[in-house]
Amino acid sequence: MQIVSGTFKGKTLGTPISMLVANADQRPEAYTEMETKYRPSHADYTYDAKFGIRAWPGGGRTSARETIGRVAAGAVAKKILQQKFGVEVLACVQQVQKIVAEINPDKFTLKQVEANIIRCPAKATAEKMIRLIERVRKAGDSVGGVLLGVARGVPTGWGEPVFDRLEADLAKAMLSLPASKGFEIGSGFGGIALKGSEHNDPFRMRGGKVRTTSNRSGGVQGGITNGETIHFRTVFKPTATILQQQNTVSAKGKNVKLKARGRHDPCVLPRAVPMVEAMTALVLVDHALRHRAQCGES
Amino acid sequence: MQIVSGTFKGKTLGTPISMLVANADQRPEAYTEMETKYRPSHADYTYDAKFGIRAWPGGGRTSARETIGRVAAGAVAKKILQQKFGVEVLACVQQVQKIVAEINPDKFTLKQVEANIIRCPAKATAEKMIRLIERVRKAGDSVGGVLLGVARGVPTGWGEPVFDRLEADLAKAMLSLPASKGFEIGSGFGGIALKGSEHNDPFRMRGGKVRTTSNRSGGVQGGITNGETIHFRTVFKPTATILQQQNTVSAKGKNVKLKARGRHDPCVLPRAVPMVEAMTALVLVDHALRHRAQCGES
Amino acid sequence: MQIVSGTFKGKTLGTPISMLVANADQRPEAYTEMETKYRPSHADYTYDAKFGIRAWPGGGRTSARETIGRVAAGAVAKKILQQKFGVEVLACVQQVQKIVAEINPDKFTLKQVEANIIRCPAKATAEKMIRLIERVRKAGDSVGGVLLGVARGVPTGWGEPVFDRLEADLAKAMLSLPASKGFEIGSGFGGIALKGSEHNDPFRMRGGKVRTTSNRSGGVQGGITNGETIHFRTVFKPTATILQQQNTVSAKGKNVKLKARGRHDPCVLPRAVPMVEAMTALVLVDHALRHRAQCGES
Amino acid sequence: MQIVSGTFKGKTLGTPISMLVANADQRPEAYTEMETKYRPSHADYTYDAKFGIRAWPGGGRTSARETIGRVAAGAVAKKILQQKFGVEVLACVQQVQKIVAEINPDKFTLKQVEANIIRCPAKATAEKMIRLIERVRKAGDSVGGVLLGVARGVPTGWGEPVFDRLEADLAKAMLSLPASKGFEIGSGFGGIALKGSEHNDPFRMRGGKVRTTSNRSGGVQGGITNGETIHFRTVFKPTATILQQQNTVSAKGKNVKLKARGRHDPCVLPRAVPMVEAMTALVLVDHALRHRAQCGES
Repeated sequence: MQIVSGTFKGKTLGTPISMLVANADQRPEAYTEMETKYRPSHADYTYDAKFGIRAWPGGGRTSARETIGRVAAGAVAKKILQQKFGVEVLACVQQVQKIVAEINPDKFTLKQVEANIIRCPAKATAEKMIRLIERVRKAGDSVGGVLLGVARGVPTGWGEPVFDRLEADLAKAMLSLPASKGFEIGSGFGGIALKGSEHNDPFRMRGGKVRTTSNRSGGVQGGITNGETIHFRTVFKPTATILQQQNTVSAKGKNVKLKARGRHDPCVLPRAVPMVEAMTALVLVDHALRHRAQCGES
Repeated sequence: MQIVSGTFKGKTLGTPISMLVANADQRPEAYTEMETKYRPSHADYTYDAKFGIRAWPGGGRTSARETIGRVAAGAVAKKILQQKFGVEVLACVQQVQKIVAEINPDKFTLKQVEANIIRCPAKATAEKMIRLIERVRKAGDSVGGVLLGVARGVPTGWGEPVFDRLEADLAKAMLSLPASKGFEIGSGFGGIALKGSEHNDPFRMRGGKVRTTSNRSGGVQGGITNGETIHFRTVFKPTATILQQQNTVSAKGKNVKLKARGRHDPCVLPRAVPMVEAMTALVLVDHALRHRAQCGES
Repeated sequence: MQIVSGTFKGKTLGTPISMLVANADQRPEAYTEMETKYRPSHADYTYDAKFGIRAWPGGGRTSARETIGRVAAGAVAKKILQQKFGVEVLACVQQVQKIVAEINPDKFTLKQVEANIIRCPAKATAEKMIRLIERVRKAGDSVGGVLLGVARGVPTGWGEPVFDRLEADLAKAMLSLPASKGFEIGSGFGGIALKGSEHNDPFRMRGGKVRTTSNRSGGVQGGITNGETIHFRTVFKPTATILQQQNTVSAKGKNVKLKARGRHDPCVLPRAVPMVEAMTALVLVDHALRHRAQCGES
Repeated sequence: MQIVSGTFKGKTLGTPISMLVANADQRPEAYTEMETKYRPSHADYTYDAKFGIRAWPGGGRTSARETIGRVAAGAVAKKILQQKFGVEVLACVQQVQKIVAEINPDKFTLKQVEANIIRCPAKATAEKMIRLIERVRKAGDSVGGVLLGVARGVPTGWGEPVFDRLEADLAKAMLSLPASKGFEIGSGFGGIALKGSEHNDPFRMRGGKVRTTSNRSGGVQGGITNGETIHFRTVFKPTATILQQQNTVSAKGKNVKLKARGRHDPCVLPRAVPMVEAMTALVLVDHALRHRAQCGES
């Protein structure tokens, strides 16, 4: 990774920072079949339909390698959040297929997340996930799962009232990630099992501050942060590329069979963790600037 | 509702259309307690924290009445989609608390949706939902639920590859609605019960067109529409305003009790249906224009 | 003028302020000929060509009445600039046709500007301008001129390095005004009579601050304010609507004659003064917020 | 120059095109004095004031070398304009200090422009300009001048009614260029010598089209193109860097003397020609896309 512009003697200049990462691992030969056949549940067909052209080697812009730019920018955003605002952004794997980990959004640590290759801070569950993925890999198949993202220490007041609610921008950021199919914040889809009297987060004074005694709001109320931990979940579908034969069509409009070869990732979840952190940090730092623009250093 | 500008002799002028809806039903007296107390899981506290001021009568901009502007604009967007592009946008209530309706995204009709006050096209389930809400209303409590949104007949090729994927913009649009806590497209959170080999949508030629034989992608692949029906679900939490006493704090930082009076809506779901339709139409018409800008009339 | 939203008990809420001004002086009967004939050097033809429809009564959106919205918003911007940042925005008429006033950008006052109907602070020159315009009015003709705009007390550091240089945004703002044909900042077009050694603004310390001993830069260097007075000039062409017969074409593509009747303004300059002030204030307040976002309260 | 992304086998992919130009001619040693002294009428001081840091070697982002990115992008825009819309964008030097060339915006050619090093299509005047610049160079001084920019063959209907008038975006684009101090379109500042009856562009049918018999509008009426040649002028001040001793202040706030050494460009005009062309092309291609979005392929 090379920083092309925007820094001087180890400091940022205030002007745009440009970073360049060369793709050192192109293997166009693994993709020759994709020149003529559309991979199911991939973007091959829609790109051809929209643009009339498609960079089939490596998947071009449809490859998740695209997210390296987000992660690089997110690294800068995380530094700003941490050093300037005291905000910690963190993500981890919470669920792989039907294996769910119990994780407290306020307490899991980076060290726990990085302690295993599946990036799940609950050690015993992590091992089950790893064994499942190993079985799936051998079958040439794939599985999906759910990531938990959190931001701790976010000041009260970030966000906007209507279209640019903080949770709206987080939702967009997450659904912009390859393979993601859903987003929920706070109690999310599960919250509707409760009645309003059970679901509301009561306010109480604590340490001279307005706090809530539960956090089903997920740290955001009316689009604006309330000082509690932001926590949300994003679902990633089973990897579309599998090593089994599938029905598909060719670029010439014929029904054909396709069996992918070569590189195969049976579960993208652990690799999505830095993407979720990066996009979260970018959304937050944007809102930090917007908030400072409107409300000053308060 | 008054059209203030942008039309002439019954036609749009191509310049911005301005519409004005007066709030004919203000009841500030029902909100006097909110001047000094923060409603739990409402935006009272976060607005005060951000702006240092809050229009407490009627809830101001935090009231869902704000969405009238979206619905008015959405009505124009729906006309463009229908008349110019042959796209039909529709939404309905799919779930209230634990009562779930079976609904085929390709088949339910506007007439079915509007046939009952809960706006659920499955008649028998709708009746159960209505009875549940009636019980909840009598208890001064509230429930949440899930809305299904669909767009049928969307041409192949709408959407963008990276940050502005169609599903990302839909997610943002849905999470920008008051009380919404989550969004999922296609198979969504449920999709991870499947393996990749079960989840992928096989391509087959049908009627000379590239089609999929299932639609777990929800009509979007790689951020771009594939010509299948777009279908997604949005969750709305139980209404925060309930007629039971709750713990909260005052604007002066004291622990107090609050019991709302007056207007009380035990379930926002049926009223969220036009909001979801409007926001969907606005997202789609934006992408229709972007697509035409880039790719022409194709 | 009615404030429709965004304020409460005399204070702004931090959310958008909506203002409405009804057009109380529509006279469609004065425009009936414009339904079928294109006014030369007006927007009648280009609107028809672009939109295929045109609100001919009153000129619709092409009328300078459109600028009332800018002036209303600019009034809010001017208050923010004055109360929060100590910035004064002011404009005046500097030239009408060939009559040019000597005006010191640092010194002329609002009172001087408002002392006569042409809004030129140089009293004797103002009288000449008024007499000229009177003669032109009687001939059913029109004249153009130049406005001087200034912003005093702008802090050092507002603006951006490349595309959004402060002078670039001012230029766009001015050229967005009806009838304006040009913009120059600081020494402008006249500056090229000088050599670099004569044109450069030498820096000197004054009152502990970095100041320039001349101000041919017009208060902006490299797109960013240097603390000196911003001063620029905008040219407005002779009013297109005249009471003399002119050659033109009809909407049906025939060569025809047109002679405008009714309302006739032989010189728009004095009425452009509040427009220039408003647009200047809006550009500055945008940059004030951007600057605070990026650099804090510094 | 390296194309990093966005093309495949010699064709654009429809996704962003990234281009990289390494600065192969850095000479930080020529700038050591700028580390501690602010160059008059340069951006050294304002960058320090805004960002608290400045990349003094080479001038960093304040150097006109920044415009290489614009010229590279503009080359793509020019191809789109030419091949897709039949639009020709061209610029040339019209004036250096007091030497003015007579140039017909409709007729001068690229070949004429590139026939001499000052890029002025009027051969005899070009030679006078070159001699003047040579004298100025020897004196270690500098001169400014005016560029003429044109766009021929632009379809009727490009542009927007209010804030984003085509001339407003052109003005912003030109004022965003380093050293530019002003912009005028059509008759510009000179147009006010005329009365409205002399200034208006009469419409006449010609070849079945609505045309104007003069072009003081500069190809734009009410913010929207009328099919005539767009022509505008931009003024560039005398180069700030001169080889004579000047008064200035140091970064530490002391009055000092500065005498630049090394690279010295006595007149930026010929090098600004491609910048003006590039920015014009970028503005036009943006409006081409906006127009197609709104009005279709018409």
